[in-house]
Amino acid sequence: MKIVRYRDGAAGEGRYGLLEDGTVYAAEGDPFAGSGMTPGTAVGPLDGLALLPPVQPGKIVCVGLNYVAHVTENDASRTVPDEPVLFMKPPSALIGSGETIRIANPDHRTDYEAELAIVIGARCRNVSEADAAQYVLGYTAANDVSDRNLQKKDGQWVRAKGFDTYCPLGPCLVTDLDVSDTSVASRLNGEPRQSQTTASMIFSPNHLIAVISGVMTLEPGDVILTGTPEGVGPMRAGDTIEVEVGGVGVLRNPVA
Amino acid sequence: MKIVRYRDGAAGEGRYGLLEDGTVYAAEGDPFAGSGMTPGTAVGPLDGLALLPPVQPGKIVCVGLNYVAHVTENDASRTVPDEPVLFMKPPSALIGSGETIRIANPDHRTDYEAELAIVIGARCRNVSEADAAQYVLGYTAANDVSDRNLQKKDGQWVRAKGFDTYCPLGPCLVTDLDVSDTSVASRLNGEPRQSQTTASMIFSPNHLIAVISGVMTLEPGDVILTGTPEGVGPMRAGDTIEVEVGGVGVLRNPVA
Repeated sequence: MKIVRYRDGAAGEGRYGLLEDGTVYAAEGDPFAGSGMTPGTAVGPLDGLALLPPVQPGKIVCVGLNYVAHVTENDASRTVPDEPVLFMKPPSALIGSGETIRIANPDHRTDYEAELAIVIGARCRNVSEADAAQYVLGYTAANDVSDRNLQKKDGQWVRAKGFDTYCPLGPCLVTDLDVSDTSVASRLNGEPRQSQTTASMIFSPNHLIAVISGVMTLEPGDVILTGTPEGVGPMRAGDTIEVEVGGVGVLRNPVA
Repeated sequence: MKIVRYRDGAAGEGRYGLLEDGTVYAAEGDPFAGSGMTPGTAVGPLDGLALLPPVQPGKIVCVGLNYVAHVTENDASRTVPDEPVLFMKPPSALIGSGETIRIANPDHRTDYEAELAIVIGARCRNVSEADAAQYVLGYTAANDVSDRNLQKKDGQWVRAKGFDTYCPLGPCLVTDLDVSDTSVASRLNGEPRQSQTTASMIFSPNHLIAVISGVMTLEPGDVILTGTPEGVGPMRAGDTIEVEVGGVGVLRNPVA
């Protein structure tokens, strides 16, 4: 099942929809209710809708340095972590596919980072790696937009990665996806930049859920960004950045 | 006005109350509605209620190293920042006054950090320091509980400060408080540990709102922790830690 959220009318409320063969159908039900969702009337083609992030998370927990080749690409002194390095992005940073990334500091290097995102489906705490999958509602694509100048200056990454519009998420949430070897790629103005698969992760999605739920209670709708592969680079006003996760589709955002 | 939230019945829902002369009255209205709140029937004395954090924030933005003498007390190599250093705690870390701080790693040094907390009252973005106060609903007290071993190991502070129960908040939210020279203190098992005033902050509460709202949209209920003064130290199971902010009262939590 592929779940989207879209704006119903110009300034309208967010509504859930189901995506089938490129067409979005108004969704009956709630993705967190457990009773499932059924497609209602057709709303239109995916590309014609004002998409919102597919969920509204209470928190966005992020993992740094989860692909070996990315660990050292910007800083040769970094070593491969023996545990996931956690940070957070504020929910206020979220935008949907099609919405504009607004560069806060045009004189800074501001990078795209293509990532697989996990969406939690049920409250959990201290979950084992073996049990983790049953607490997952599904997966989507994310762009962990990062101001490299502030990331280096601050030491803490929250400001550099926390600006409004610095967390594109979508286009849809896929509930039945095998993420053991899923492609994670980015294209800048149509040119390939990142291209890896989740098989190259240092810590698997289920391992990340085990570690993070060992720290904090995860709630339905919470989002985990699983880290970016090598090949990150800067964006500038006028660019279009695409993140594609196999089975999810293309998260496409213009840059201003 | 002093606003509390309390659990109505053993496993009951959170309800707002108003605190007057030590007695909590059931509150009519909503602290974010702008129409004000009026006290209804008396619920009981503050000390007899199961208190919850006075608000349910969408995000908790925190400031590190905001009192000069604290900057170097654990690490002599640190320099006084020229801009606030931002990090976040997850909402899942919140507990109310009287609830138990559960030490996640008993073999690690886990410190109390007494702090003034700002509660945002209205959505804002790019607010000037001069205008900041009009977006504040009020102030409360917080304890930024910190696992020093993980803080040092991870570099990023989110895990070290993000465990469940590592963000006591309360006991009440005070809407009319001059925070230009307010006492911020802590006591461990009744013995004074931290004792400073907000006049010693490097960055004032209004300056912090200007900086943070320049990064991200702040929403009603969002909480800003303004940093801790010198005198932090470890807690152990069996201790009781108190944070007192002048005009707010005592945030008291047992440790297990």
